[in-house]
Amino acid sequence: MKNLYVIKIGGKVINDEGLLNRFLDDFSQIKNPKILVHGGGNVASNLCKRLGINVKINNGRRITDKDSLEVAVMVYAGLINKSIVAQLEARNCAALGVSGTDLNLIKAKKRSHPTIDYGFVGDVNEKSVNITAMKQLLDINITPVFCALTHDGNGQLLNTNADTLASLLARSLASHFDVSLTFCFEKEGVLGDVKDEHSLIPLLDKQQFTRLKNKGSIHEGMIPKLDNAFEALHRGVKKVSVKHPANLLTETGTQLTL
Amino acid sequence: MKNLYVIKIGGKVINDEGLLNRFLDDFSQIKNPKILVHGGGNVASNLCKRLGINVKINNGRRITDKDSLEVAVMVYAGLINKSIVAQLEARNCAALGVSGTDLNLIKAKKRSHPTIDYGFVGDVNEKSVNITAMKQLLDINITPVFCALTHDGNGQLLNTNADTLASLLARSLASHFDVSLTFCFEKEGVLGDVKDEHSLIPLLDKQQFTRLKNKGSIHEGMIPKLDNAFEALHRGVKKVSVKHPANLLTETGTQLTL
Repeated sequence: MKNLYVIKIGGKVINDEGLLNRFLDDFSQIKNPKILVHGGGNVASNLCKRLGINVKINNGRRITDKDSLEVAVMVYAGLINKSIVAQLEARNCAALGVSGTDLNLIKAKKRSHPTIDYGFVGDVNEKSVNITAMKQLLDINITPVFCALTHDGNGQLLNTNADTLASLLARSLASHFDVSLTFCFEKEGVLGDVKDEHSLIPLLDKQQFTRLKNKGSIHEGMIPKLDNAFEALHRGVKKVSVKHPANLLTETGTQLTL
Repeated sequence: MKNLYVIKIGGKVINDEGLLNRFLDDFSQIKNPKILVHGGGNVASNLCKRLGINVKINNGRRITDKDSLEVAVMVYAGLINKSIVAQLEARNCAALGVSGTDLNLIKAKKRSHPTIDYGFVGDVNEKSVNITAMKQLLDINITPVFCALTHDGNGQLLNTNADTLASLLARSLASHFDVSLTFCFEKEGVLGDVKDEHSLIPLLDKQQFTRLKNKGSIHEGMIPKLDNAFEALHRGVKKVSVKHPANLLTETGTQLTL
């Protein structure tokens, strides 16, 4: 099978122009087929602030109400997505900015919870990805650039976590390609001790992850990312790694194994 | 040759939810291949106001500075584009929201003027459209939904008039398809007397247009639209009409002839 690279960049990469440029230089060198998934950075929160929209939090979870969804759509699908696409086109990469609603690429279900109304948040599952449409795009050498928005199929846009989408896309295409999934973020990889930048774990298996998680050594914010990463390996993704965007084309970082 | 429908909707259609829904019902009934081009409505101006961004005007022409461009990208490529796409997907139309930067579909040149700096405004010409990429999308039954943004090929997004883009797309594809170009706006069509809604001109030729223009009978705002429309006919587009969106599937409106 052909290789397929699914690469996710987080908000902190997007906020750092020099780092983003370097990442896009490297990303555009990677042979097709490939997919980029991007987060939102603090641009959406800043815009909410400027517009006087209060980001609602319930039990520590962010609530996406109508106003915050509008901001997310403007910032993720508009500003960030099209800026990245323009930068990739300048590097001769045939990039197509998409959300999950375009071509019905990713259909989600509005989250339902017995006590908390999360608002316009979309949950995805193994049947969410329109594999036929994804394959059509990849087959004609298009590089899809995903923002983390989905839809419910009835006209409603929904907010979905970008790590979750990257893992979902990788898993869903694993029966058609040898998929390599890379999460790029501001650290070198998974650290054994969050306070020590030199404690990079080059190879992390599921058992060790569980042990470190129980010990409380792994940074809280990393846990859902790693859960998504291991889920991808379970579902047939060939290679999953977590690394700094400046190391995209090198082996430096954390490679995950089952 | 196959028929291709290029349909443009203006801002006032987008601002009217009921009318937009009706238009999208009708648009989704049209057989592929088809392209939708949308304007921005007053959403961008409203957002500028909320953010305290002054829309700069020079000699009656709007200047797109960095801040207004950011708002245009957020509103046109984000909010409006993705909302329309989600609504079309709910109607089983395989819609793909794009700007001119996606797949390098429309490359423009930043406007240069001896005395006025228009800012980030892109001018297009006969070589601007990436016909190969457009044909690839249309050949696999994708319905492109264009917002009126282009790019310069060096990473800079640019603002371009939506009527101009619709006419450009129609002309550029006229050697591959029998193209029908329709401008939908809030009137029944071209009126002989702007104050009289019953003065619809069902068939308007170039000579009559010039006469009415010189007499001052045609509404100022209609003139660039009609210039774009006649230009399309000159360049091989088979049928060009101007009509109310509620009449999309009927013959009511103004048909233009050379």
